[in-house]
Formats: sequence, structure tokens, C-alpha cells
Amino acid sequence: MTSAKYDVLAIGNAIFDVLVRTEDDFLVKHGMVKGGMALIDEARAAAIYAAMGQAVEMSGGSAANTIVGLANFGARTAYVGKVKDDQIGRLYSHDIRAAKVAFETKAAADGPATGCSYILVTPDGERTMNTYLGAAQDLGPDDIDPIQIAGSAIVYLEGYLWDPKNAKDAFLKASTIAHDAKRQVALTLSDAFCVDRYRDEFLELMRSGTVDLIFANESELHALYQTADFDTALKQLALDVKLGVVTRSEKGCAVVTKDEVTLVPAAKIDTLVDTTGAGDLFAAGFLFGLVRNAGYENAGRLGALAAAEVIQHIGARPQTSLQDLAQQNGLPV
Amino acid sequence: MTSAKYDVLAIGNAIFDVLVRTEDDFLVKHGMVKGGMALIDEARAAAIYAAMGQAVEMSGGSAANTIVGLANFGARTAYVGKVKDDQIGRLYSHDIRAAKVAFETKAAADGPATGCSYILVTPDGERTMNTYLGAAQDLGPDDIDPIQIAGSAIVYLEGYLWDPKNAKDAFLKASTIAHDAKRQVALTLSDAFCVDRYRDEFLELMRSGTVDLIFANESELHALYQTADFDTALKQLALDVKLGVVTRSEKGCAVVTKDEVTLVPAAKIDTLVDTTGAGDLFAAGFLFGLVRNAGYENAGRLGALAAAEVIQHIGARPQTSLQDLAQQNGLPV
Repeated sequence: MTSAKYDVLAIGNAIFDVLVRTEDDFLVKHGMVKGGMALIDEARAAAIYAAMGQAVEMSGGSAANTIVGLANFGARTAYVGKVKDDQIGRLYSHDIRAAKVAFETKAAADGPATGCSYILVTPDGERTMNTYLGAAQDLGPDDIDPIQIAGSAIVYLEGYLWDPKNAKDAFLKASTIAHDAKRQVALTLSDAFCVDRYRDEFLELMRSGTVDLIFANESELHALYQTADFDTALKQLALDVKLGVVTRSEKGCAVVTKDEVTLVPAAKIDTLVDTTGAGDLFAAGFLFGLVRNAGYENAGRLGALAAAEVIQHIGARPQTSLQDLAQQNGLPV
Repeated sequence: MTSAKYDVLAIGNAIFDVLVRTEDDFLVKHGMVKGGMALIDEARAAAIYAAMGQAVEMSGGSAANTIVGLANFGARTAYVGKVKDDQIGRLYSHDIRAAKVAFETKAAADGPATGCSYILVTPDGERTMNTYLGAAQDLGPDDIDPIQIAGSAIVYLEGYLWDPKNAKDAFLKASTIAHDAKRQVALTLSDAFCVDRYRDEFLELMRSGTVDLIFANESELHALYQTADFDTALKQLALDVKLGVVTRSEKGCAVVTKDEVTLVPAAKIDTLVDTTGAGDLFAAGFLFGLVRNAGYENAGRLGALAAAEVIQHIGARPQTSLQDLAQQNGLPV
């Protein structure tokens, strides 16, 4: 194993976020499941957008938010995701590069527009996402650069990649290259509905050792093992994967291996504004802890800190220096 | 004079805001005048954007921000401004309509892209704007609908309209129609550098009665009369226009006519985050007070309240209900 050029390389659906505050009855009226991520087609996207109020736009995408968080902590990072070469795709590409993340995936010259997620943020801070995948549908194995993958200490993948038709192949290609190069592969389960769609495949990825590290929140874990009992699900997770990290919102997180369970409390916040990106930024902090060999306890605290930052403002990307925040809280950077 | 369909119709440069927090040295390095609005061409826009960090995007444009504020207070509103029919133009059109502002200006099918302003927000909350006018350059007299103008109690115009080559003619056409219909015409001086560019023309607009009401901040007023003495400038303003409203940041505002001066204090804020839109939202509140015949004192307080809301978050459009805010503060709505 040669030394890595990147600490973490993330692969995900490149999605531009269109965020709006709304009341709960908007979700009811439009048949949305609160807190979830629904895939929508172009016609539904147009209908939802037409009904939405004035919005704020910024780059998003689950794994992209994580990698931007990692770069913000000071990690060496790269991202693989597909936009179109359109106005929004250019905003997207600018933002991820401006965050000092290497981003070389070729933008689509034609086909669907850059993907967008129409995100409704209700007064309780919960976010409900409606995602039009657009150009992200065209991410495929050709977008995977073997040298870049082999040169990354951790390859981080999002479960949402199972939705577009070819991204799964890109995922598997990346995982094989990473393992051949003795690198680690991490997967976030993304969303409980995503787990429902791909449960058997996700379990197979874990049990076959295609992924080494799983990130899940409580509802994704319950969906994965189809049980309402947290401890049962957590024990099963410890058997199925080398390292499992389960976030539980204000209850903190649990880090499990076959041999141990580490519980880490959540970080304190003043006001919950918008949960968009909470899981993504938790993963950023936790992975940064791994990158720095800080131990699971510190990794969990770094994750909690980054999640706390992102839920106190609108949008899924950090608005402050996570590195400074970690230092102020006595955590390793 | 028939009863008006709209309380206020605004005409302005339709500009999409690309906002980023930055340190002061970025401004120095890129030769920007802090606090100002510089017009830039496409090449300079590309160079500035390439150097900028991750951004947040939202619809902007000075008069558009004002009219959205007015709609938010509960006024009946319309907007005239030019975007291109591109992705950003569609975001822009969505937002202003979602704010319940009538917006019927035909989007340009070709020519330059929708205009963008690259806005740097420094740690002290000051904003420095770099504006690429784009499609806004093509606003012209044909975009002025005489029936819509004649049906608006107040026509509100921004000084920035003197920059694009044809918008001035649209401005003058609108003013003539409005006065023929016994309506009021208001103008904001926009920016001290804008006043430097068009001082004689702005004074002529005032002295000829082409405009009835002037909004200016302190530095614009000083630029207009080329004096450092506030009282001298204010007295001159009272002679040159029927109604003059001068904002002075935390010192509040002065409302002047030939007969009286009304001083109104600023509204209290917790934290100054971003001054973008402060003047625009002050004008929204003040005009709303005029629309409701609330008197200059209340109009000034409504303006101060709206300005205070907008400077406590990133971006130039209100993020809360100004109507509720006014009610909570015992002001007329």
C-alpha cells in the first residue's frame, strides 16, 4: 500500500439544493412523506417548484456535503459526481472546487439538466426532500478513475447511488479498485426509504465485505433489519460489518465493532433551524477522526460537532470553519 | 384618477445574487471598493467567481427586493425587469412570482445570460457588489405596459436603471404615464458611485418633478450635493423634491419636505450579519407606510423594521413575515 494522495474520495449524486421554509400543510397537500427523500420526475419537479415559495439555492448532494465538510476540517479530498454543463452545473462545480475538493468528473454535454432537490424545511427544522436526479442518472463506471480511487485512503459512497441506473456499477468498480489497493470502503445508508428499496443488496454489500464501514441513522438501521428494537439491530450490525456508526439525533451516536460499543453524546445546539445535511456532516466529522487516527470516541465527537454546526442554519454545507470549531472544543485536528 | 390595481409597481435591474462570506483582504486583492456596487463585464465576472469561495444563491436586484418586501407586508405589487429565459432566469421568475408579485416582463430568448451580482460579505457584515447586468441591459420602453403603470398608485424606480442603455427610456416613459394618471413616482439613488455617474441627470429628474419622492442613504446624499455636511445636503434635498427620505444606518432616518423634518430612530438588532438589501427593505417598509397612509413617522418605523430584519441574515430578501413583525411592534398594517 502506497501512501494516499487523498484522505477521502466520495462518490455520490451531484444535486443542487433549492430550499424553502414552509408549513407542514404544504407537505400534506402535496402528498410528501415528512423527513424523507422522494425521487421525482421532471413533471413532478415542475409542479412542486411552481407551488413552492421563494427559495434559496446552494450546492448539495449527500456525499458531496460530506466531502466538503471533510475538506473544511482540513482533509485532502476528491469527489466523483455527474452534473450537466449548464448554468446550475457550473454553479455546482464552482462550489465544490472552491471548497478545495478535487472534482474532475466530466460534465454531461447533453441529456437531462443538472439534478435538483426541492427541499421543504418545516418550522420544526425537519427537511423533506424531493429529488430530480437529472444528469446524476448518467454517472457510470467510465467516471471512475482507477488511479484516483487507488490513491484514496477511504472511498465513501452513498446508498442513493443505487437509484440511478449505472451508478451502482461505478460504485462496485470503485470498491474493487479500493480493496485491491488495500483501502477502506465506507457506505452511508442514506435514507430509510432507500434502505427499503435496496435492503438485500445493502446487506450483501456488508456481508461480502464490499464495504467496511456503514453509516446509518436510527430509522435506517431499523429499516435495514426490519425491527423496532434498537439493541437487536445494533448487535446485528456489529456482526455484518467491520465498523458500524449509528446516529440518533439528540441522543448522540453508537460506534460498533464485533468487540465493542462506543457511545458518544450529541453536541449542544442553541436553535435547530434546518436538519438538512445533519447526517452528511456527522459522517464528515467521523471520517475526519478516522483519517487522523483519533479513536472512535473523538471521531464521534467530531461528527457530532459538524452535525451541530450544519443544523443551526439553512442548507447542508458548513458556514464556518469546522477546523476552528474542533480546536475550540479541544478535539484533534 | 381611478382606484389603483397595484399599490406599488417597481422597475429595476433583475439580478440574481451569488453571495459569499469573505475576509477583507479578498476585496483588496481584487481591487474592489468596499461597500460599493461595481459594474463588471463577463470576463471580470468569471475571474471574480473563480476566485470566490462556495456561495449561496438567491434572487436579488434592488427594486425587486423592495417590491418583494412590500408584497410581504401585504401590499399589492408588480415588477418590471428583464431576465433571460435560462435556468437562472427561471429561478428568478419563480421567486418573484412566489412572493405574490405580478411579473409579466417578457424574458429575453437570446442575448446575454440573466444578470448576476457577485456579493462579498465581510466579517463586519458589509457587502461589496460586483454586478454583471447581462439580460437586464435589454430592458427598454417596450417592456413598459401603460395600463399597468397607470394602474399603480406608486411607481418605484432604481437609480441603477441609468446604467443599462435603454432602461432610462423605460424609466422616463413610465414616469410620464404615471404622472398623466396622477400617480406618484419614487426613485432610489441606489449607490454613491451611481450618483457620481449620473448626478446632473438625477438632480434634473428631481427639479423637473419627474420624480416626487427620493430615497437616499447618507453617502448618496453627500455624493448628490457634493458636500460633507449632512444638514446642508438635507436642506437642499427638501428644496429639490416633494418628499425626501434619507437613511443613516444605525442613526435612523430623516424624512424631509419643504415644511418639516421627521427623524425616526433605527430598529434594534441582535447581530449584524449582512447589510445586503438594507436600503431596499427600508424603502419597502416606508412605501408600505405611505400606501397605508400611516404618516411619515410610522412609515419610517416600518422601513427601519424591515431593514433590521434583512441585515440579520444572509441575503436581501426577508426570511420572515414583515406583516407579523409590524403587528408585533404595534405598527399599522
